[in-house]
Amino acid sequence: MKPDAARPALIGIDWGTTSLRGFVVDARGAVLDRVSTGKGVMNIKGGAFEAALHDLAAPWLAAGPLPVVASGMITSRNGWVETPYAPLPLDAGDLARALVRHVTSDGIRVHFVTGATTRHGQGRDVMRGEETQIVGACAGRAVNGVFVLPGTHSKWIRVETGRITDFTTYMTGDVFAALRDHTILKALIEDAPFSPDGFARGVALGLERPADLLHRLFQIRTLPLFGDIDPAMTGDCLSGLLIGTEIAAAAAAGPPSGPDLADRYAIALTQAGIACRRAPEDIVATGHYLIAKAAGLLP
Amino acid sequence: MKPDAARPALIGIDWGTTSLRGFVVDARGAVLDRVSTGKGVMNIKGGAFEAALHDLAAPWLAAGPLPVVASGMITSRNGWVETPYAPLPLDAGDLARALVRHVTSDGIRVHFVTGATTRHGQGRDVMRGEETQIVGACAGRAVNGVFVLPGTHSKWIRVETGRITDFTTYMTGDVFAALRDHTILKALIEDAPFSPDGFARGVALGLERPADLLHRLFQIRTLPLFGDIDPAMTGDCLSGLLIGTEIAAAAAAGPPSGPDLADRYAIALTQAGIACRRAPEDIVATGHYLIAKAAGLLP
Repeated sequence: MKPDAARPALIGIDWGTTSLRGFVVDARGAVLDRVSTGKGVMNIKGGAFEAALHDLAAPWLAAGPLPVVASGMITSRNGWVETPYAPLPLDAGDLARALVRHVTSDGIRVHFVTGATTRHGQGRDVMRGEETQIVGACAGRAVNGVFVLPGTHSKWIRVETGRITDFTTYMTGDVFAALRDHTILKALIEDAPFSPDGFARGVALGLERPADLLHRLFQIRTLPLFGDIDPAMTGDCLSGLLIGTEIAAAAAAGPPSGPDLADRYAIALTQAGIACRRAPEDIVATGHYLIAKAAGLLP
Repeated sequence: MKPDAARPALIGIDWGTTSLRGFVVDARGAVLDRVSTGKGVMNIKGGAFEAALHDLAAPWLAAGPLPVVASGMITSRNGWVETPYAPLPLDAGDLARALVRHVTSDGIRVHFVTGATTRHGQGRDVMRGEETQIVGACAGRAVNGVFVLPGTHSKWIRVETGRITDFTTYMTGDVFAALRDHTILKALIEDAPFSPDGFARGVALGLERPADLLHRLFQIRTLPLFGDIDPAMTGDCLSGLLIGTEIAAAAAAGPPSGPDLADRYAIALTQAGIACRRAPEDIVATGHYLIAKAAGLLP
């Protein structure tokens, strides 16, 4: 084992809206330790970001200083240090050049990864944090493909020869929760184990006519009403409809080849005839490592 | 004036989820009096529908008995008397033959108008109450066209030679309220006067690519974030996006010629290049009258 391996060289922080994840990485990019807490940006009161970082990183800094690279909503207007959105295309080197430096009152050097923006017709799209995950998922290789990052705001990110060239956000998870809990569908949706049949039924409805979502949502009501599906499937049918609609819309832009792809997306992508595979763990830490390396922060 | 004109011949009740509207109609179909209250189906506790009807109709029944024709969600599972859904096509005569009779404990004869159902691919669609409005809007003429009834669950209803032949429900209003109040968009939406510019911008986004709604919703966030629209327009831009998406989806089925069309729909339909006009008042009372007449309930 080389002397620089297995010795802490960098702390990577993936600091999102609802969660805070920290990693210690060695000079080769291997993850030595990780911690995850609920101290996301929206859960930090009174701007106490420095204290939250200190709590997280203190055990790792006991043996000496380490650079910190932080990405995610922590760089948004409601976060710690607001950074601009970088234009595309982007790779680790571009993100390294755009790092925004900040030194805490106790001397920790924090390097914030900027977010990214792109234009779509009349509107724009933005991300903060996902660019770092994708840099990690590419791991320095000249990857071509589309990465899907499901979630509250699902991202489809296009990579060409290892650089991010385009991305699109779908509000699928956010919309699902709002429709499930705050429309006429609420009364129909039961707590039930995952129903592959109900989900597949919804995916088929979404894939068939994505432009018809506002009508298909009403069909989610009539399916159990007429006994066309078991009422216990209603929630998964709604989930499938939204994910199927997202995939149908996104597939127009090219097939995905994706990390961080939840089971539902894997099922729905297969149903849409699109091959997919899942990313390895800790891609965001690999992203922090590659950006830090490109920025000359490592020994 | 003929002896039967201006003399009460029928009570029409449009009994929806949130409101209860009553009309007194003469033997020619003219509305002599009307009352509107908040005693919709969901606001009636303990199944006290008979008491609510009595409160509404007692003044009109003081001079003698009158038949009552009632339509709307009052005939749903959560209403007073559940009626089946009638299949299409439908006109006043078909609805008259399908009336479901009920006599109250104080001897009032109530004739419930059944709802309607249709099939769309793998799913079904349903309505209760709108069929009566459309019968009234056609007023016995051999109308051809599409009627748009905006609302929580917007209905597009096709009529051929005066008979309802198809309809489609869009959950537009229900979805709008859920997204406005329960997603990331909530923080951006201010109370503001109607913005024609913000609304038109949203309509354009919806018309342009209706299959892309889940992504366009995220653009509603980035437009004010980048100063592309005044933040005060955000709510109307969301409203326009949903209505534009609905119209783009529905226009595939043919242009509307519509009554009960709210201002927003008139603006958005014009923007979509679709001519429209508004229905006269009290079409539902005309519907009750025509169904009652076809059922032989009038003098």
